[in-house]
Amino acid sequence: MTLPFIFHSQTEDGLVFDGELLTVTLKTENVKFDSVHVRCEPDNEEYLIEMLPCGKAGELQLRQAQFAANRDRDVTHYVFKLIKGNQQLWLDGRGVHKRMPPKEFHFKLNTQSQPPSWVQEQVFYQIFPDRFAASQDEQAIQNTYAQYDPDTVVKSWGEAVGSHQNTGAREFFGGDLKGIEQKLDYLDGLGVTALYFNPIFTAPSNHKYDTKDYLNIDPMFGTNEQFAQLCEQIRGKQMKIVLDAVFNHTSVHHPWFDIKQEGQGAYGNPDSDFRDYYFFEGQSNNHIGWKGIGNLPVLNFENERVRDHIYQGEEAVIKHWLKPPYSVDGWRFDVIHMLGEGDGAKNNAHYVEAFRKATKAINPSAYVLGEHFFEATQWLQGGQEDGAMNYYGFAHPVRALIAKQDIMYDPIDIDVLDFKEWMDEARAKVPFANQLSQLNQLDSHDTARFLTLLDGDNEKMRIALALLMTYIGTPCLYYGSEVGLEGGLDPDNRRCFPWDQVAESEWLPLYRDWIRIRRQYKALQSGSLQWLHCDEQVMVYARQWKEETIVVAFNLSKYEQNVNLPLWQLGLNATHLHQILDKGEVEVAERHFSVNIPALNCKIWQVK
Amino acid sequence: MTLPFIFHSQTEDGLVFDGELLTVTLKTENVKFDSVHVRCEPDNEEYLIEMLPCGKAGELQLRQAQFAANRDRDVTHYVFKLIKGNQQLWLDGRGVHKRMPPKEFHFKLNTQSQPPSWVQEQVFYQIFPDRFAASQDEQAIQNTYAQYDPDTVVKSWGEAVGSHQNTGAREFFGGDLKGIEQKLDYLDGLGVTALYFNPIFTAPSNHKYDTKDYLNIDPMFGTNEQFAQLCEQIRGKQMKIVLDAVFNHTSVHHPWFDIKQEGQGAYGNPDSDFRDYYFFEGQSNNHIGWKGIGNLPVLNFENERVRDHIYQGEEAVIKHWLKPPYSVDGWRFDVIHMLGEGDGAKNNAHYVEAFRKATKAINPSAYVLGEHFFEATQWLQGGQEDGAMNYYGFAHPVRALIAKQDIMYDPIDIDVLDFKEWMDEARAKVPFANQLSQLNQLDSHDTARFLTLLDGDNEKMRIALALLMTYIGTPCLYYGSEVGLEGGLDPDNRRCFPWDQVAESEWLPLYRDWIRIRRQYKALQSGSLQWLHCDEQVMVYARQWKEETIVVAFNLSKYEQNVNLPLWQLGLNATHLHQILDKGEVEVAERHFSVNIPALNCKIWQVK
Repeated sequence: MTLPFIFHSQTEDGLVFDGELLTVTLKTENVKFDSVHVRCEPDNEEYLIEMLPCGKAGELQLRQAQFAANRDRDVTHYVFKLIKGNQQLWLDGRGVHKRMPPKEFHFKLNTQSQPPSWVQEQVFYQIFPDRFAASQDEQAIQNTYAQYDPDTVVKSWGEAVGSHQNTGAREFFGGDLKGIEQKLDYLDGLGVTALYFNPIFTAPSNHKYDTKDYLNIDPMFGTNEQFAQLCEQIRGKQMKIVLDAVFNHTSVHHPWFDIKQEGQGAYGNPDSDFRDYYFFEGQSNNHIGWKGIGNLPVLNFENERVRDHIYQGEEAVIKHWLKPPYSVDGWRFDVIHMLGEGDGAKNNAHYVEAFRKATKAINPSAYVLGEHFFEATQWLQGGQEDGAMNYYGFAHPVRALIAKQDIMYDPIDIDVLDFKEWMDEARAKVPFANQLSQLNQLDSHDTARFLTLLDGDNEKMRIALALLMTYIGTPCLYYGSEVGLEGGLDPDNRRCFPWDQVAESEWLPLYRDWIRIRRQYKALQSGSLQWLHCDEQVMVYARQWKEETIVVAFNLSKYEQNVNLPLWQLGLNATHLHQILDKGEVEVAERHFSVNIPALNCKIWQVK
Repeated sequence: MTLPFIFHSQTEDGLVFDGELLTVTLKTENVKFDSVHVRCEPDNEEYLIEMLPCGKAGELQLRQAQFAANRDRDVTHYVFKLIKGNQQLWLDGRGVHKRMPPKEFHFKLNTQSQPPSWVQEQVFYQIFPDRFAASQDEQAIQNTYAQYDPDTVVKSWGEAVGSHQNTGAREFFGGDLKGIEQKLDYLDGLGVTALYFNPIFTAPSNHKYDTKDYLNIDPMFGTNEQFAQLCEQIRGKQMKIVLDAVFNHTSVHHPWFDIKQEGQGAYGNPDSDFRDYYFFEGQSNNHIGWKGIGNLPVLNFENERVRDHIYQGEEAVIKHWLKPPYSVDGWRFDVIHMLGEGDGAKNNAHYVEAFRKATKAINPSAYVLGEHFFEATQWLQGGQEDGAMNYYGFAHPVRALIAKQDIMYDPIDIDVLDFKEWMDEARAKVPFANQLSQLNQLDSHDTARFLTLLDGDNEKMRIALALLMTYIGTPCLYYGSEVGLEGGLDPDNRRCFPWDQVAESEWLPLYRDWIRIRRQYKALQSGSLQWLHCDEQVMVYARQWKEETIVVAFNLSKYEQNVNLPLWQLGLNATHLHQILDKGEVEVAERHFSVNIPALNCKIWQVK
């Protein structure tokens, strides 16, 4: 039996909060319901509030109700209960169900903590500094790097990346801040609007996740003055800057640890002033390392001085780089879920909240982004992070559907229906504002590149790119993807940017198009998401923002597919579909619009 | 495609915890898997531990792995990941899935807080004291009650209950503690082993949810001495006692509130010492009442003196009744989810934890039972409640399936597959020990009686009873159900116990049988739950505890149904099924045992 159509948008069209009351609007098929209520829990007990008719949108009936936001906690949950004959229909963040949904899927609004609105408007670009662009020639790089550790290996730009078994984290290609500065026009031309840098503070490795000095740019990359200048230039392009914050652990060469025992550090020195910055076993040198790795000693946040250094003091690291002359726009907190006390993540929520507070104290509009390789729901209820690197709710399911691999590179077999369920579940558990502020990526410095996972299958790659650019969440490109740069597992995923391939790249125009489309349509940045069709191989969704409606269709099968789209469910009086990406024909919309989607392809229209 | 069979029991057969390490055992169909891992999160990051073969159980392959319990929190989560060809199989508390399940459904063990083991062994019996049994004759009751408020109405035993619009909560039938004492042999003969009393402390109404004095038994019911004696007698029958704790609010006649202004109470007296025991608006008489009901003023737990009175002080109410001479075995905390600070439930978890701590301080084996009309997952992770009145995970779905009504008496239509999904979801979110300690009920003083919901349909009632007595969770009967007492909405659901109908009751022998069966088989009290079959109208599950296996089959359709049961999935070398309830024939078990289940009926076997 087909259920009546019901939909609720958490954009301004469907949800307005005046500081005290929520006004929620429900769209339904124009059929008779015996009752329509919104259910909320002001004190953990059920309250059902009747929803009264308040007009029409196209063929759809609108109903509205008001209720007070929870005063006992920051997040207000609500869900809709409709009765028609002997049937109940409950609408939650995933869709329609025959019984009351579990609480984690109810719609939610965090009335106290909202992500900054600029985030959802961006297209991010992730830069791994050593591999993006070098300002010096090879000889100059050799000369510069000669002053460092003797085991430093300097390679020629574009040379194969060494495995971890070989020179691994000690090999350098000479990318630097000046190199980035020289490519700002390129990035501007590409259309990206925000840059996320992998770590740039002083650290021995090429990836710099082993910080030696949180307050100075690594000399390989440049100086603090050069970084200040780069920030100024980036701002001049109207771009945002997000830095990588590695506070779970330090390098063993950090003066606090000092493995070489050249100073007053904790290692080999039970009486050191810094002994309690880390977790040592008694008087011994045994200490807790990140994932058991001894040379990444874990910081002890039980220690007030560590808290002062990292986030609490007026000159704390978190605050320092948010202030002029750098004034960066946000932090991406590395493995933030693992951070805490002892060898687990004890009191983790407390520290994440404290990081947020310290960040927002300097810049209330700064972006608090957490890195989580798996489900991040608990950090994304508003009071901790604005968004996460969205592996769980985007990268994993897209990878499973299109590349048939999970994040551990194990085979996995799901169809489009499974994919939709996964995406819906993951999204529904997070407040809508945070859904929009998730950082969606197909790949990163921690995964094989998506095109490589696909064995270079361009058709599938185009589908993945369309998903990235049209789904809820802020897209982030990993440097080089836009020119088809490939790369397997870390460190092969960190190859040098092939600047000599830019001119003839077949990918670049497509990336530019998608970035332009993403930036052009507010519906893609901030709109609701509404499914119009889903079967094992085909899915179609709409993104809607006020008067603007975009429809995107994906065909994962090897054959052209025809589907009927229930355009009436959009509540519009629209008559035409304008194909956007391939410009192309204008098609006349009907109630059930019949559309052909070519094999392994996608289409995108604006509804007018 | 059929997925290979995989199962994990959280009984001792499948999960052993030695204080540091968990040893988990997985049962699978004997086919080749490419890999089998258990996944845990010692620091919020994924760790996959290989599971190694360790023997067989019947046709099933056993695999085992060990990992450390979380040290950063009380609850350890784990889930199983199996790969076979291009397919992933993830086993969580609900069953098998094609992708990693959301965290709330992972298996969980609270290593710090466990419910007392005696709870799961009980069959509870709920007594509404004014209506269960009276020790005095009608004239004596009239005389006794004459000393109370003039609006007190005394009715004859068995007379129709008045509506709330009429005399409602002010009408009394004269049930008392001595009456209960006189019926202890009856209760013992019925087979129940634990008594839960609706409130018995001094209060104006017949339901006594409006406490006037937490430290004295209501004189209508008896004296503290009589209660001490009753407790002694109940203990003499090896029965347990659980009392109703109404701490969210008091009566307006409590001396702390004192609406008649006869003493020093808070009402109309802004300078009262007790003013901050409640929430008044400034100098006015406006105060917060439970669900907005002014004559149930909500207690203010921000006030240390309230905390002292209720749970914190040495002579606090919670502690008082747990001590001799009463030594009750547990508390059922009324609307505990609503309790907190102000007009919401702010800091609710803190107070529930404090209630638990106070309770366990006096008796570590006391039962902490919460009343929640809806989802109670968040209170059931171990550190707050041992169990809940299981409306959400038992009463609601059973009512929806069999009576086609939800808890608000709205129509709802679900089939057996929907029912199974609901039950599995609700159960999986709670640690196994707490699943066993849930208080399962078909009805209570707050709902219409189940038989009445069914319009007296005996066949359906028998199915519901079989579910109550065989499902995971501790069964609780509402007084009188065992003799077919009916009753609609409150207060009609609180009719007098029809003692004159006991002798000829057709229900009583069936209830006695089911109670005996429940008490006889440890598998029903403490065993794992394994589904053997489920379709739209028929379900079959097994409960297993060590060598004991019980199989229960339900047919919800109007026709006899034949199903094949995959008995090999039980991992036994059993050859026979012995029908338990109707004694009856012994059937020879085969790999796929074919069984007929009569229309609207159930069967129960022991596997031998």
